[in-house]
Amino acid sequence: MASTILYMSMSLDGFIAGPNDRPDNGLGDGGGRLHEWVFPDAEGGDFAAAEARLTGVNRQVYDEFMSTGAVVAGRGTFEPAEGWGGDHHDGVPIFILSRHAAPAWAADWPQVRYTSDLRAAMSDAKRAAGEKNVLVHGAGIAQRALAEGILDEIEIHLVPVLMGAGRPLFEHLGTEPRELERVRVLEGERGVVHLRYRVRR
Amino acid sequence: MASTILYMSMSLDGFIAGPNDRPDNGLGDGGGRLHEWVFPDAEGGDFAAAEARLTGVNRQVYDEFMSTGAVVAGRGTFEPAEGWGGDHHDGVPIFILSRHAAPAWAADWPQVRYTSDLRAAMSDAKRAAGEKNVLVHGAGIAQRALAEGILDEIEIHLVPVLMGAGRPLFEHLGTEPRELERVRVLEGERGVVHLRYRVRR
Repeated sequence: MASTILYMSMSLDGFIAGPNDRPDNGLGDGGGRLHEWVFPDAEGGDFAAAEARLTGVNRQVYDEFMSTGAVVAGRGTFEPAEGWGGDHHDGVPIFILSRHAAPAWAADWPQVRYTSDLRAAMSDAKRAAGEKNVLVHGAGIAQRALAEGILDEIEIHLVPVLMGAGRPLFEHLGTEPRELERVRVLEGERGVVHLRYRVRR
Repeated sequence: MASTILYMSMSLDGFIAGPNDRPDNGLGDGGGRLHEWVFPDAEGGDFAAAEARLTGVNRQVYDEFMSTGAVVAGRGTFEPAEGWGGDHHDGVPIFILSRHAAPAWAADWPQVRYTSDLRAAMSDAKRAAGEKNVLVHGAGIAQRALAEGILDEIEIHLVPVLMGAGRPLFEHLGTEPRELERVRVLEGERGVVHLRYRVRR
């Protein structure tokens, strides 16, 4: 059975984007720092070449989330990334949470479905993924999925930086603690620690 | 040369105490969860017996911070803990940051010095510690020491729980990112991950 797994790069102080993140500044000011473990030399925007050079533990973790069978993300993740050109990886189905309809430029992409129903999106994504896991991405989605008890696992790529400000991953969770089970700890290159937890029910 | 090392137990969502922390509720509501890796069976308050039973990695880390040569902490840490009876461990000097004078019950303790000068406290503590490290404790101290560039290392005991609310460790840091160097990662018992970083200058 597939698991829904939130994959997020996060600073030690809990931020997943820098300050002032907007559609035209998707990572926020300085937020590219959080993704250097995947795109170390992508200043010129040559992401494909940067990815191709990944090795070691960071390669392993990257390959894991790039071999998932479906993607669930928020509009705030999808649209600033120009919808990954309609294909996040391998043409797997992409479910985008939004209260709005898909923008014109994404409306005809066959793999992309806009929906406002997180629970349905998560279960449809699991079905579509078959034996594979589901890549979940975005802070808003994470918060809602945790609140609704429909997130199976969390993989944090903990980046060795204190951002000082930006968009936090975990907020608005409410005051009820949620226990986690530590599943795996990997020491990646460039000081990143990949932390995998299962959400206890 | 001694290092100043911030030791803090923190939830994955960045809290070091539960909500409603006050002098008579020092850990905040439910905040005892964050310290179970040290005091797993201390419901009855028998901390000494709980400590004595510690083994493995958690024992190692506990022994490390209990063999430091001086302590620097905030009044908000010290006073709810009743000043550790005047002796945190081994009678080492204790520097308490506060804008107020020491309360009457702590005024005559020989190892305890109240001060409002963090920079002097840190350098006096280093001098007092000699070859040993300095244990730094408390969120407010951490934030000020980071801002002033006088914290050498950070050891986070990352507890596998999402608290949902409480007192964050890292806030008010400002918007200037601070780079860290990962020094050590230890997988402790009860799902705790001990993360050691050096603060880059």
